[in-house]
Amino acid sequence: MPRVSSDQLEARRRQILDGARECFARHGYEGATVRRLEQTTGLSRGAIFHYFRDKQALFLAIAEQDARVMAAVVAEQGLVQVMRELLSSPDSRPAGWTGTYLEMARKARTDEAFRGHWQAYSAELTTATRNRLERQAASGALRADVDLTVLTQYLELVLEGLVSHLAMGLPAGHLASVLDVVEQSVRRTTAPVDGAGAVG
Amino acid sequence: MPRVSSDQLEARRRQILDGARECFARHGYEGATVRRLEQTTGLSRGAIFHYFRDKQALFLAIAEQDARVMAAVVAEQGLVQVMRELLSSPDSRPAGWTGTYLEMARKARTDEAFRGHWQAYSAELTTATRNRLERQAASGALRADVDLTVLTQYLELVLEGLVSHLAMGLPAGHLASVLDVVEQSVRRTTAPVDGAGAVG
Repeated sequence: MPRVSSDQLEARRRQILDGARECFARHGYEGATVRRLEQTTGLSRGAIFHYFRDKQALFLAIAEQDARVMAAVVAEQGLVQVMRELLSSPDSRPAGWTGTYLEMARKARTDEAFRGHWQAYSAELTTATRNRLERQAASGALRADVDLTVLTQYLELVLEGLVSHLAMGLPAGHLASVLDVVEQSVRRTTAPVDGAGAVG
Repeated sequence: MPRVSSDQLEARRRQILDGARECFARHGYEGATVRRLEQTTGLSRGAIFHYFRDKQALFLAIAEQDARVMAAVVAEQGLVQVMRELLSSPDSRPAGWTGTYLEMARKARTDEAFRGHWQAYSAELTTATRNRLERQAASGALRADVDLTVLTQYLELVLEGLVSHLAMGLPAGHLASVLDVVEQSVRRTTAPVDGAGAVG
């Protein structure tokens, strides 16, 4: 048996996640059969379930990956910027992201264990969002009359709306201007957004 | 055959919609089999499909009913008030409302015809929201620096987030305070909400 480097293991794992994401987005959780997972990942069931215990573990790994990527971008650029990028290319970050969202939301609804895991991953996004808001509050960029916990949940609620909207394939309409309103409403003043750095 | 009054027809139609809503919320669209629809409605398939051509027509009728109810409340009390009520009793308006939302969102994602119908019903909610904002703008209660079209879509985006959040069974947390932020952000001033009438 050939020796496999950890880079190769990681690449294989990513290949499975990418293919599985596409499969869940297209066929739904129940519709993502083992046979279809084999087709979209290009790997055998043996290989797939060598890396992931079962279908639910695979689904959860996608949710975890999404939360990690989002949290990293939030830490650097803020949640509003994440939303702006989602809006400009809804299916690019990461590929098919909005597509699996409704499947996960639906599974969280009916499966308490899954909901628990999902909430744990979402907590990373909450922490990243809150940490960034704290830094901005310290620099005086944020409104001070509303608790940071509330502002954090406000931004997350808008994100949930945006992802749900895009996942349904609804038109973007004036959502770019809507995000301006959102950004203004967490700033210290409500003056029109100037050239200053992004908030949120 | 006994003669049936139009009141009785309407009551029967409502009985089917209520039972079907519960069935879709619990089992999902695909999982809502004819047999399960018979159980939750308490009626035979013959009776059910006398009123609705097929399962999709039944599902669409629920979406239409939801949009009508929401639009009526929005016209009277505003979209923020609808959200406050949704928050205080997520499953009461109408029964199981948030439960079917994710099913509909998911079907809209993959079924273009369904998406078209759903957008048409949502348009009624948009119109009701916008009409109310226009009346409030005329009375000087709204901020004037952002187009009403944008404010309308802003409120609708928050609603989408809220419904998605509640449908997943996630904790309400500080959402009541979040809605205060939302309400303030469409008002003329950003001073803390006083005792004045609800906006939005």
